[in-house]
Amino acid sequence: MNRSNGSPSDRSITRSGATLAASDFLQLNPADAPRGGMSDWLARQIRRAVAEGLLPPGSRLPATRVLADELGVSRGVVTEAYRRLTEDGHVEGRGRAGTVVLAAPLVRPPEDGLVEREHGGRGQAGRGPVGHRAEGRGTGERRAAARRAEEGGSTSEERALFGDPLDTGVFDALRAAPARVDLSPGLPDLAAFPRAAWLRAERAVLAGLVPADFGYGDPRGTPALRRAVARWLALNRGIAADPDEVLIVAGTAQALGLLALMLKDEGVTRVALEDPSSLGIRQHLRNSGLASPPVPVDERGVRVDALRATGARVALLTPAHQFPTGVVLDGVRRRELADWARDGGLIIEDDYDAEHRYDRPPVPALRSTLADHVAYAGSVSKLLAPALRVGWLLAPRRYRDALVDAKRFADLGNAALPQLVLAHLMESGELERHLRFLRRRHRGRRDAMIAALADRLPGAVVHGAAAGLHLTVTLEPGCDDVALAAAALERGVKVQPLSWHAQRPGRPGLVLGYAASTPSDIREGVSVLGDLLR
Amino acid sequence: MNRSNGSPSDRSITRSGATLAASDFLQLNPADAPRGGMSDWLARQIRRAVAEGLLPPGSRLPATRVLADELGVSRGVVTEAYRRLTEDGHVEGRGRAGTVVLAAPLVRPPEDGLVEREHGGRGQAGRGPVGHRAEGRGTGERRAAARRAEEGGSTSEERALFGDPLDTGVFDALRAAPARVDLSPGLPDLAAFPRAAWLRAERAVLAGLVPADFGYGDPRGTPALRRAVARWLALNRGIAADPDEVLIVAGTAQALGLLALMLKDEGVTRVALEDPSSLGIRQHLRNSGLASPPVPVDERGVRVDALRATGARVALLTPAHQFPTGVVLDGVRRRELADWARDGGLIIEDDYDAEHRYDRPPVPALRSTLADHVAYAGSVSKLLAPALRVGWLLAPRRYRDALVDAKRFADLGNAALPQLVLAHLMESGELERHLRFLRRRHRGRRDAMIAALADRLPGAVVHGAAAGLHLTVTLEPGCDDVALAAAALERGVKVQPLSWHAQRPGRPGLVLGYAASTPSDIREGVSVLGDLLR
Repeated sequence: MNRSNGSPSDRSITRSGATLAASDFLQLNPADAPRGGMSDWLARQIRRAVAEGLLPPGSRLPATRVLADELGVSRGVVTEAYRRLTEDGHVEGRGRAGTVVLAAPLVRPPEDGLVEREHGGRGQAGRGPVGHRAEGRGTGERRAAARRAEEGGSTSEERALFGDPLDTGVFDALRAAPARVDLSPGLPDLAAFPRAAWLRAERAVLAGLVPADFGYGDPRGTPALRRAVARWLALNRGIAADPDEVLIVAGTAQALGLLALMLKDEGVTRVALEDPSSLGIRQHLRNSGLASPPVPVDERGVRVDALRATGARVALLTPAHQFPTGVVLDGVRRRELADWARDGGLIIEDDYDAEHRYDRPPVPALRSTLADHVAYAGSVSKLLAPALRVGWLLAPRRYRDALVDAKRFADLGNAALPQLVLAHLMESGELERHLRFLRRRHRGRRDAMIAALADRLPGAVVHGAAAGLHLTVTLEPGCDDVALAAAALERGVKVQPLSWHAQRPGRPGLVLGYAASTPSDIREGVSVLGDLLR
Repeated sequence: MNRSNGSPSDRSITRSGATLAASDFLQLNPADAPRGGMSDWLARQIRRAVAEGLLPPGSRLPATRVLADELGVSRGVVTEAYRRLTEDGHVEGRGRAGTVVLAAPLVRPPEDGLVEREHGGRGQAGRGPVGHRAEGRGTGERRAAARRAEEGGSTSEERALFGDPLDTGVFDALRAAPARVDLSPGLPDLAAFPRAAWLRAERAVLAGLVPADFGYGDPRGTPALRRAVARWLALNRGIAADPDEVLIVAGTAQALGLLALMLKDEGVTRVALEDPSSLGIRQHLRNSGLASPPVPVDERGVRVDALRATGARVALLTPAHQFPTGVVLDGVRRRELADWARDGGLIIEDDYDAEHRYDRPPVPALRSTLADHVAYAGSVSKLLAPALRVGWLLAPRRYRDALVDAKRFADLGNAALPQLVLAHLMESGELERHLRFLRRRHRGRRDAMIAALADRLPGAVVHGAAAGLHLTVTLEPGCDDVALAAAALERGVKVQPLSWHAQRPGRPGLVLGYAASTPSDIREGVSVLGDLLR
């Protein structure tokens, strides 16, 4: 399945700079393509080659002109195929350096549109995934983990830390554990937090407040921030919304909690989840008493046919950058999903890191075309800092009053001062500048991680590099990713096992955040992983 | 019942400066006193005189030596009686100016320890009280109120605003209504918010943060703030608590929500409430699906015998300064309450404004002696600003893990930056300085309101002046306080009707915040009320 098997194709691929004798090497035969579907067919063949490790990250695709000549098709066909591969994050255009393979989808490309996910690994049904949002009890939990390690006879405290992903303290315990290099996913570069700009904005805000602004406020949030968020979403996520539709919340965790309250009042008992997906979110639904039937994800995104089969009325999805696989929901699935929603489905769109798209503007949010069927949740956790605890929720009109009431009783509304500072940063263009800065910096770190993985983990397949703050790597079937993460922690490197994030048995792997670590830390961390895998 | 009836006692009382021929005027006969209970008896007689309007606010009590001579008792007896009256907020020592009547208890003093509350007014059973915490939906709700006014044939939009106190939007509607003078209770002087100190502290905090501080944090709150709060509570509220016992929350509203979740999981269906008490809190319990059996309050505080009679296992109380009556729970009731708690009762102590005590240090919190039976909730809403949405909850040990989990799933913990700024203000002594400043300023405003009431509302009886940010006045039985509040709003003055805050029929009145208004605004507002009552 991947390069470490020493597949015969190895002979003709070099890690970087090699131009493929593509039609030959990939055994492409344009006669196999369906009529009128040449670009689609070509993109699918290349995806498969990437997934199978024939085209590892860093490989360069042939120039469009060269491949078109080889295949005897028009150059437009190849250009269109490359465009699609770029869009879903497999490859990236790098100007004169050509088109380079970034990462593979988590799954084998479908032969018939309905292919199963690859199965492998430890077959530990019921084991959960890890969330990109995380929380916990700290030292107490850590002690409990240590105790469990002793009682259960596990080999180490580190192993115990990863013991039960549905234990709500698991993230706290992992966060509290000391580590030299932290490759946990879900964090932007926190060292880049714009302290000076924040303080300047706060000074300006404080100078302009009237006494009533320090009193009890509108539970929906300050008008200034609701206006700023509406504008931000229009510019960055293609969403046309009135500020009155925006509910300011304490991050996506609270958005989920308020939605769960409301849904339970409506009699909803299940919220379908992509599988794999965020463990933090699965813990959250579980805490709210909601079941989370798993829906497989393939290279096009969530499997809408499987979603229908669950019978769930509500689905929580990450369409712009599926967590943790990094797949971008494609046009076909978007249309299927729209049909499902119009048949009475509600989509909770968790748009957790879509602004961090590296190759081109982010794909528009589902909310942009399905306002009546999507409850859209976003936050500044990946834009600025999770510690700010500010997010937004845009729900279909029929839910709005109930959500405002739920927010009122939850906390009477977010704190005013940080809202106003944030609005100031948004309206002044500072946040946009910060995001551009982060994109450049994160991209460099992503590339450093891809390079380090190619160098130190040649057996791993990399997924989801087109956007976001993390990569997912899949490993040999049979590899115990929990043991690997525990061993890494013992050597001072924090990572999350992919199996934490899966409800059903699946390929083992690791979820690796790169945005919050320096390139040298990334290299050091990946190097430790490589040593452990050898 | 009060001075506007032209009671015969008027002849011997002047508004200020008059020394009473007390034993004569009050018809005190020491022979009526029980053996060994002379001080207690004397205090009771004076309380009754205050409650009945014989001693209106501003009256000066006889010097202890004079009264002791007149009554033929030792001077210590009188001193002790005055001490008790001072403690429960009836009178205040003013050095050379003597001992002056501040305000009356809401109820007639008990003859047999179990006297009923005075009944009067409109007999509108089921009508609710208004909270000192408030929230809502703004213009939409305002429009709805206007619509209700039209549909219901009410005389004005203002009347409709006060229409249904259990409508969760009622506070928003009232807050959104324009007014020249806002005498809503529950706000400190917001113009005094220490902007410069806050900004200085924020600069210092930002300079000292490491990147991880911007990430996901401990859901219990930052260690720095938990330490600072523990110290604050030790110094100001007599509570000895470890920082690990402190849970930082988004204000008392969230503390209540988290407690409600936990209690419902335990099978609790009812939380007994003082009557009258905060409408905001009653709305909150109702929203959580908890009933709130009413427990009468008399001049000693909540009636513990009546609490027992409800059969409720949990009671939410405001012992330091009962909302809205201002009664301070006395020693006898404290002991009764401790017995009730040790028999299996849980007390939720809402310590909403106890730091604002004017005559002497605040009475210690119940939590200080009943750690295993009290869930203690406090916040900075009355110390700095409600807009900060920061509070703390200290619960009995057995509830702590469940509450941390509830907080985690609510919002993953409060925002870090404001917590750290607040900790800085607490540890540097800035908050203590601010509180001292506020106490002086609030005291001046309280006195201005008492003077204005004596001048413009001579028929009103004033209650609860020893502490806090508001006064309660009771009016003639038969007065419609909702109509009065609506008419006041029509004339640009915002007040809350006392009947909003009562579950059972009671004396009509108004709850008047003074802390957030200037003395001249207070005089203007009270003047409007006086005109309306004439």
